[in-house]
Amino acid sequence: MKKIAICGYGNLGRGVELALGNCPDMELAGVFTRRDPKSVVTVTDVPKYRMEELPGFAGKIDAVILCGGSSTDLPVQTPKCAELFNVVDSFDTHARIPEHFANVDAAAKAHGTTALISGGWDPGLFSLMRVYGDAVLPNGGSYTFWGRGVSQGHSDAIRRIPGVVDARQYTVPIESALEQVRAGKQPDLTTRDKHLRECYVVAQEGADKAAIEETIKTMPNYFADYDTTVEFVTPEELKKNHSALPHGGMVFRTGKTGENNEHNQCIEYRLELDSNPEFTAGVLVALARAVCRLSERGEHGCKTIFDIAPADLSPLSREELRKQLL
Amino acid sequence: MKKIAICGYGNLGRGVELALGNCPDMELAGVFTRRDPKSVVTVTDVPKYRMEELPGFAGKIDAVILCGGSSTDLPVQTPKCAELFNVVDSFDTHARIPEHFANVDAAAKAHGTTALISGGWDPGLFSLMRVYGDAVLPNGGSYTFWGRGVSQGHSDAIRRIPGVVDARQYTVPIESALEQVRAGKQPDLTTRDKHLRECYVVAQEGADKAAIEETIKTMPNYFADYDTTVEFVTPEELKKNHSALPHGGMVFRTGKTGENNEHNQCIEYRLELDSNPEFTAGVLVALARAVCRLSERGEHGCKTIFDIAPADLSPLSREELRKQLL
Repeated sequence: MKKIAICGYGNLGRGVELALGNCPDMELAGVFTRRDPKSVVTVTDVPKYRMEELPGFAGKIDAVILCGGSSTDLPVQTPKCAELFNVVDSFDTHARIPEHFANVDAAAKAHGTTALISGGWDPGLFSLMRVYGDAVLPNGGSYTFWGRGVSQGHSDAIRRIPGVVDARQYTVPIESALEQVRAGKQPDLTTRDKHLRECYVVAQEGADKAAIEETIKTMPNYFADYDTTVEFVTPEELKKNHSALPHGGMVFRTGKTGENNEHNQCIEYRLELDSNPEFTAGVLVALARAVCRLSERGEHGCKTIFDIAPADLSPLSREELRKQLL
Repeated sequence: MKKIAICGYGNLGRGVELALGNCPDMELAGVFTRRDPKSVVTVTDVPKYRMEELPGFAGKIDAVILCGGSSTDLPVQTPKCAELFNVVDSFDTHARIPEHFANVDAAAKAHGTTALISGGWDPGLFSLMRVYGDAVLPNGGSYTFWGRGVSQGHSDAIRRIPGVVDARQYTVPIESALEQVRAGKQPDLTTRDKHLRECYVVAQEGADKAAIEETIKTMPNYFADYDTTVEFVTPEELKKNHSALPHGGMVFRTGKTGENNEHNQCIEYRLELDSNPEFTAGVLVALARAVCRLSERGEHGCKTIFDIAPADLSPLSREELRKQLL
């Protein structure tokens, strides 16, 4: 049984706790938190510790799954933690991946540990589909769509507008764009062509709703480049209809083959997730299994999902995999 | 530039020839055939040799892609060829994979070569999706559907019936089954629930069409367990409407997560291929790239797609992959 620690207990940490319950070969050794451990309510009866206690567990934990945020937590925590433990994170700031990789790689190589960064579904499984698609259909194009699903970052951006009490934002792929891609047309799609943004907003009593709507729709980076809809709802409606965290999306690779490029070939990978954090957690736990195996084989340093042979993610042996799933 | 040889030049061999044209890092060194090389018409101007000349190229070819059939060619050719070359095949008799693997592994290990068996899309990319799905959603079920597409084996079976001149058989997934799976119901589906078989048959003049239809529909293994439709067409209609080789299919993994299994999670991977052999060839060529790399690193013996880190399939470096596709 591999001993796994969770570092940071929010939606993702809770998802990892649940995911480990479905793994016959891993067990949860403890939850490490910056809060008062007594105040953290876990699903199962599991030891809870202060974050500062983690170094004392060196040598007693096979892998730490870091469940903090990408903006400020992981850039610090992952390299630091990799000095003592095998680690897995879900770092998802795409532009900063090379820098994060270099930092974690240096720490892991210096200390003989194995680290995996940017696990989850995007980056993660979607990235895999981009690599496989690109490799098998080189004469083609790749398209990634997200949603219909809740974007936490966009919801937060709305909440920061004066007069807004709460908000939930859905990213929605545009059907006509999907149709063009599926038909193998390899269209050039702008940001606005690919996704809509649907906002559900609870305003303070007496707030200027027209002004809030205008502020949302013209917000640079977040909404200005999209067709955005804003609907004002009551706190009760928001809670009743918009408290889940569904997400998903699609990766397409379409390409041409044949002597005269006469054949269309289309690969579509689609996720429809009732719970984004619980699904992400399932990926992180499978990656933790792989990290433990790489570490045992002496394969140290920082890895990504691109470096992991699929067999290393599975609890089955390679012989079982060939017999049952090939 | 890696030098690749094609062994066997039918639809698949031709597909490999075309696929290599899209690879900046590989070139076609020659086509080896059991026919008279002069009689083989290739797409490009490439050297053609008798199969018996292949051993003379030992040391001059980086990988051989074997494009023969799974019933009698590959069980003999792949282990034999692995004594002298790195090899890739598309062995697709699922039940005999463990035996084929053992034979090829013994040859490759004894001679210090690297072999990859059962490449393509099923076995191949579909197998990968079964492994990834099973690993990230352990509390769930997997479903594979094939089609709509031409089954060569079933078409051949119809052609062997007395009174039949030619035939084409399509495997068609049943929409209601797909819907149940997508909805996360994890249904128990029989063979008949999952696929229909559509047959287009050219009969000899004066043949007993009712008898042919009955023979098809009751044929054990091939049709008896399915709902099968039979339509008689003219040779011209068959040529006009049914001479392409489209195929495809879907792999689903659906699973439950959450404290009370309250969340459905659905992964769907779908292929829609205008040309089955050309797409399969694209996968084999990417696998040949990986085999060359494994061989250079001294990783000998028989592998499957489960053993290949995704990065090894790509012409891009790991650094480029992290930056561009993660």
